[in-house]
Amino acid sequence: GKMFDMQTVTLIPGDGIGPEISTAVMRIFEAAKAPIQWEERNVTAIKGPGGKWMIPPDAKESMDRNKIGLKGPLKTPIAAGHPSMNLLLRKTFDLYANVRPCVSIEGYQTPYTDVNLVTIRENTEGEYSGIEHLIVDGVVQSIKLITEQASQRIAEYAFEYAKNNQRASVTAVHKANIMRMSDGLFLRKCREAAEKHKDVKFTEMYLDTVCLNMVQDPTQFDVLVMPNLYGDILSDLCAGLIGGLGVTPSGNIGANGVAIFESVHGTAPDIAGKDMANPTALLLSAVMMLRHMGLRDHAKKVETACFDTIRDKKVLTKDLGGNSKCSEFTEAICQRVRDMD
Amino acid sequence: GKMFDMQTVTLIPGDGIGPEISTAVMRIFEAAKAPIQWEERNVTAIKGPGGKWMIPPDAKESMDRNKIGLKGPLKTPIAAGHPSMNLLLRKTFDLYANVRPCVSIEGYQTPYTDVNLVTIRENTEGEYSGIEHLIVDGVVQSIKLITEQASQRIAEYAFEYAKNNQRASVTAVHKANIMRMSDGLFLRKCREAAEKHKDVKFTEMYLDTVCLNMVQDPTQFDVLVMPNLYGDILSDLCAGLIGGLGVTPSGNIGANGVAIFESVHGTAPDIAGKDMANPTALLLSAVMMLRHMGLRDHAKKVETACFDTIRDKKVLTKDLGGNSKCSEFTEAICQRVRDMD
Ligand SMILES: CC(C)[C@H](C(=O)O)[C@@H](O)C(=O)O
Ligand SMILES: CC(C)[C@H](C(=O)O)[C@@H](O)C(=O)O
Repeated sequence: GKMFDMQTVTLIPGDGIGPEISTAVMRIFEAAKAPIQWEERNVTAIKGPGGKWMIPPDAKESMDRNKIGLKGPLKTPIAAGHPSMNLLLRKTFDLYANVRPCVSIEGYQTPYTDVNLVTIRENTEGEYSGIEHLIVDGVVQSIKLITEQASQRIAEYAFEYAKNNQRASVTAVHKANIMRMSDGLFLRKCREAAEKHKDVKFTEMYLDTVCLNMVQDPTQFDVLVMPNLYGDILSDLCAGLIGGLGVTPSGNIGANGVAIFESVHGTAPDIAGKDMANPTALLLSAVMMLRHMGLRDHAKKVETACFDTIRDKKVLTKDLGGNSKCSEFTEAICQRVRDMD
Repeated sequence: GKMFDMQTVTLIPGDGIGPEISTAVMRIFEAAKAPIQWEERNVTAIKGPGGKWMIPPDAKESMDRNKIGLKGPLKTPIAAGHPSMNLLLRKTFDLYANVRPCVSIEGYQTPYTDVNLVTIRENTEGEYSGIEHLIVDGVVQSIKLITEQASQRIAEYAFEYAKNNQRASVTAVHKANIMRMSDGLFLRKCREAAEKHKDVKFTEMYLDTVCLNMVQDPTQFDVLVMPNLYGDILSDLCAGLIGGLGVTPSGNIGANGVAIFESVHGTAPDIAGKDMANPTALLLSAVMMLRHMGLRDHAKKVETACFDTIRDKKVLTKDLGGNSKCSEFTEAICQRVRDMD
């Protein structure tokens, strides 16, 4: 077989069911002979010099060096005043694009079939600027900040992603009829990127229209790109269409080649440590990671084994409708991976 | 039978298919002996003294006097610089609450059954403030304005609505984890209203979580109340769940007892004047209007006739899956109404 250089990935197992589902992914990757070496780190925020919350230096250093991370769920906030770990990680590594492929999983029943779309969310500004003021008593304002630079970066990323992943169209999602200047700027940058990438079809649509059309017929959508808050909403909505956060992968693309792939579900403390967790979301995030690293054959192998196991319905965790343990589900996937050799 | 005083309602037929579907509603109301007298007005904006866009004085006067309006779709903007008629009407009559009951229609197939919820959208401020600035080249801000007064008014309305319509719970939809001050203020006012109305269950939920849960199981929701933009999104999303804007009623509640009920679909210029339009959304909006006016028996009669006609599937307009004309569908509903006497 082809030889691959080992690449080191920072593994952030996370809290609750995080360690179990991370172990599951590691076992499946081993079965698939994925040329990945794991470097485990804990990212739970600490108070740095000056009292500012930061992720531990050894975790930061590991990510800076390896560039690629895989992350389980984190419980957050740990204490009053503790920041959202999601927001802190986005900031620390300038993770500007949140990417979520939402693809219907055969055998896992939802009201929809044939969903096959990707949401790309600007992850650094917009409604998440954190700038708010009390104007007078009883009157408050929040500021949505849109910059040319961030809009251009995410628009450009969306078209590059479409090309690299054989996707035919990009839809910009906006409310520029209401927020003429801010969403207008975002939209303009999307149009400019579209001009540069004429091989990808470009459309623009109001957010409300997208939501309405999405629940009526999601198959009409391909790649969607949008400002921060709209992405927060639409990415969760689309996850719902294919079965929820337990089966939806997610990737965060940062500046300087950094990327963190993660399951976006919670830590599920009630079942933690009981070998009951469903590792699918983390596993499919790891598959995204393999593709991002150019390891497409390994990605395909793991993904196929996972989908076949779900379609087969014989060995499933409880949330997927079965009564197998996490380790049994994992072993079933490993077995399929081995059988492909 | 019981005698009712005639009440006058301002009818704004609107553009495109507006006149046809308005005629349909009038015919059905006549069959139902609804004690309503119509006063037709055109609201298309004109340039007032000083060059400001305004709705024609006779339409404004009619609404101010009658308090209740029924409105078909309006084509907008008419010309460059012409304002959105929706926004202008909201402003003119301080229509602070947009109310949309979304109820699954038996016989009209969608991926969902048993949807039965109401979205209540704050309609005057938030992201729709219209305040935007260019900070420096390439950096733009939009201001989301939340006031104590408007938040209190909509929160109070939501609980009153729940009580008056036998609904058990109100959910406040927010992103106060991100917009701590603005959504925080909105949420606080909802909590205060909940304290005053302990007979209605109160919950709060993040907008992203609502979207995810909504597409997975909409039956868990009852009344939802939220700031302007979230309402724009969720109300369209929920309309999608029950079959789209062609079957979804809508009401706008204003200050000083004013209320305008309307279909929120477009003017459908391609089929205008061809006796092909579906009057359901306007008819169900008129049913909401009857309930709002306390004419519950008439409302029930018209609503039942409409739903029975759709369930029966024999006489349906094209968009509803049949091949009957608008006038035939209307007549089928009238016949059922008459048969109830
Ligand atoms: C936890 C919260 C800060 C976050 C967000 O609103 O972005 C979450 O909803 C997400 O999508 O990662
Ligand atoms: C037309 C537009 C101004 C409007 C809005 O965004 O509010 C529309 O989407 C609505 O919901 O009435």
